[in-house]
Amino acid sequence: MADFDIAIIGTGSGNSLLDERYVDKRVAICEKGVFGGTCLNVGCIPTKMFVYAAGVAQQIRDSARFGVDAHIDGVRWPDIVSRVFGRIDPLAAGGEQYRRSSPNVEVFASHTRFAARNDDGSYQLHTDDGDEFSAEQVVIAAGARATVPSAIAECGVAFHTSDTIMRISEVPEHIVIVGGGFVAAEFAHVFSALGSHVTIVLRGTTMLTHTDDTICERFTDIASRKWEIRSRRNLVGGSSDDSGVTLHLDDGSTVRADTLLVATGRVPNGDQLDAHLAGVEVSAGLVAVDEYQRTTARNVFALGDVSSPYQLKHVANHEARVVKHNLLQPWDDTDNLMPANHANVPSAVFTEPQIASVGLTENQARAAGYRFKTKVQDYSDVAYGWAMEDSTGFAKLIVDDDTGLLLGAHIMGHQASSIIQPLIQAMAFGLPAQDMARGQYWIHPALPEVVENALLALCGEPPWPPPRRH
Amino acid sequence: MADFDIAIIGTGSGNSLLDERYVDKRVAICEKGVFGGTCLNVGCIPTKMFVYAAGVAQQIRDSARFGVDAHIDGVRWPDIVSRVFGRIDPLAAGGEQYRRSSPNVEVFASHTRFAARNDDGSYQLHTDDGDEFSAEQVVIAAGARATVPSAIAECGVAFHTSDTIMRISEVPEHIVIVGGGFVAAEFAHVFSALGSHVTIVLRGTTMLTHTDDTICERFTDIASRKWEIRSRRNLVGGSSDDSGVTLHLDDGSTVRADTLLVATGRVPNGDQLDAHLAGVEVSAGLVAVDEYQRTTARNVFALGDVSSPYQLKHVANHEARVVKHNLLQPWDDTDNLMPANHANVPSAVFTEPQIASVGLTENQARAAGYRFKTKVQDYSDVAYGWAMEDSTGFAKLIVDDDTGLLLGAHIMGHQASSIIQPLIQAMAFGLPAQDMARGQYWIHPALPEVVENALLALCGEPPWPPPRRH
Repeated sequence: MADFDIAIIGTGSGNSLLDERYVDKRVAICEKGVFGGTCLNVGCIPTKMFVYAAGVAQQIRDSARFGVDAHIDGVRWPDIVSRVFGRIDPLAAGGEQYRRSSPNVEVFASHTRFAARNDDGSYQLHTDDGDEFSAEQVVIAAGARATVPSAIAECGVAFHTSDTIMRISEVPEHIVIVGGGFVAAEFAHVFSALGSHVTIVLRGTTMLTHTDDTICERFTDIASRKWEIRSRRNLVGGSSDDSGVTLHLDDGSTVRADTLLVATGRVPNGDQLDAHLAGVEVSAGLVAVDEYQRTTARNVFALGDVSSPYQLKHVANHEARVVKHNLLQPWDDTDNLMPANHANVPSAVFTEPQIASVGLTENQARAAGYRFKTKVQDYSDVAYGWAMEDSTGFAKLIVDDDTGLLLGAHIMGHQASSIIQPLIQAMAFGLPAQDMARGQYWIHPALPEVVENALLALCGEPPWPPPRRH
Repeated sequence: MADFDIAIIGTGSGNSLLDERYVDKRVAICEKGVFGGTCLNVGCIPTKMFVYAAGVAQQIRDSARFGVDAHIDGVRWPDIVSRVFGRIDPLAAGGEQYRRSSPNVEVFASHTRFAARNDDGSYQLHTDDGDEFSAEQVVIAAGARATVPSAIAECGVAFHTSDTIMRISEVPEHIVIVGGGFVAAEFAHVFSALGSHVTIVLRGTTMLTHTDDTICERFTDIASRKWEIRSRRNLVGGSSDDSGVTLHLDDGSTVRADTLLVATGRVPNGDQLDAHLAGVEVSAGLVAVDEYQRTTARNVFALGDVSSPYQLKHVANHEARVVKHNLLQPWDDTDNLMPANHANVPSAVFTEPQIASVGLTENQARAAGYRFKTKVQDYSDVAYGWAMEDSTGFAKLIVDDDTGLLLGAHIMGHQASSIIQPLIQAMAFGLPAQDMARGQYWIHPALPEVVENALLALCGEPPWPPPRRH
């Protein structure tokens, strides 16, 4: 049985741990699926390539209002799929090949679990292929997986999740999406822009319920004008035949479509590792970690979706940097262990309109007892928004009355994920909103003026001379 | 003869001076053209509306590589013009009407000049319509104008400048543009995307010579693949007939086109005010001002393009805020006068690809004696750039070796004017590049990752634990 210094379970952010400081370590890398993890293979990267193509198609459909008459002759879906995976698949294969060629690394291409904790403190692991090995340190980076409600899984209806929907053979004429979160919002945009009729089945009344109310309400309003939304419905069963699927909802109605996408959420994979045999605490699949990404078992770290409520690649990347440092420190040496920073974590939904958020929602700020002001500034208030003929975009900012600091920012509209960055930066470095507004130039007539104007509306002009500081 | 407290010459940023603190002041507002100035009527705002329509057309022409086959059926130029000016012209008219209806304001709709300084320190002014009045304080906000080389002006050929080109009756089949600055770059993009053949006549060898060399070279390279560039040529004469213009260049060649746009620069209007009669120093049209926007004549301020080397609306707006404050202070009270802040002034060119810059170019940094590092990070290195199939975009950052601070940032590519804002903010508030890179989250996979990666390439990972600070 092989002995390793480090075992890494999962090759998403887990695969970025090894640098030149690790060349003398014997490392086991365990991957039951494709190298590269969710982001590269079935998540952020391919979805955004589809979203971009969808945006191009949408722009063409909308071009007449800019005085440019155009029409789409056809969407070559197989070419879109080839473009995306022709680029990504070789990266995944190359990543695996690189690891296999590293003299200090052994790859276990199979599901890997804990077997026991050895007397010397190392861990015993085994794979579904029958391999057994031990490791002194373990990094759990096993990610998360799409969930499928039992009513769907059990009725035998053919369905896709985000793992498979990007490789279907043609654009569906009619796609039904169960769920209303970010995966649903992104694929509804992709398929409707490329020509599908889209039906969304929601348990509640709004899409993107995790976002600030203003975003949630306005996005749902826009969505309901483009897509057929069946709200307050639960799926109770369904069936498939050669021509598609029939879903039965709990109000007695049915939905017939040629393709079904289930987008009801993701759960962390910590329940699939027999982690209790190592003393790693897991709750509903989520591996518990402290601020140093240490699990409850000595010398076992975790990072990314398996241990994070964020399920965001930029958070996983940060945690991987933390673990990369901490693996090389003594387990208890908190003077030298690097803590993870989970403050001001932004997120985006690459639907149409695009959405980006950071910090507290208005409801969260209220619940936390802050005294604050909010401002909703429309894209159409600034010159770039005029040029775009934008009628739905806005930036909503929340500023603390007591400190003048930003508590949250929520943007829906073109390039929301870009124009939010100065707000993320201000929050991360404690820059007061009024200083942010007037202490820098904002290019006229660029899109970030919508942020500038929102800040000014909240803060007004700073006094001159400035109040004396002590 | 009327006596005013304040006379304002020019209604661009000059028209934004009056707020509730000025209701008791008697104000003369002088405008020889259309209310609202260059930005609103013939500059930033209408050009960006044309640029956006051009971007839509360009996207359609490029859509096949995203798997979406489409074609343009037609460009309705008159509708584009109506959309733009149908929105802008009423704003200009409304602005004038608002001032005419203000009880404390009198509008002089004619060219206005200084006549003399009176013995009591007030100024005497007169208009080309024969009005005469005096004012205790004067604000010169008279802007700048397009220049036309004498070889063109004198040969009698029909030509347009940026003042008139947006109101022509149809998209030219062939437009020739003399000049290679930002006006040339923006209109070349507009007309080529909407279907014109574009010829550019340059005195030198590159376009956008004021930008960092990397931008200048790469942009000229892209331009030369789309447009016919005749470099190292001077125009020596030309003629017009019913079908267009014929230009004679100094190498003996000719260019025939249906439309000629002269884009050879702009000069400040300070030479048209008889300013010497008031003791206002003017050099080549530029009104000299100190840090408080005070001219050399007591109680005469100036702002915007008439007194600024920047010729940028966001700078003029800032200077207007400074003058708005300073007009209400005693002239010599430097404790209470607000200084203008001309540090870290960014600028953008809304051509294709878009360009945005702030701070020093690499050559300027070298000439100033800095020790520095530069990094050019391509859009194609980040996931969003993959999605866009981008092959030309990049961010170039310049970081001071001694302080770790950014010296300059130069971006060419999609939404350059948006993704540069965090860099402007970092420079304005003295945020070191390494802190900027790792002290905040960057949304994956959003476009600002190109900035994050450039910062990391320059600064590497920060040490942990951080060095102790005193």
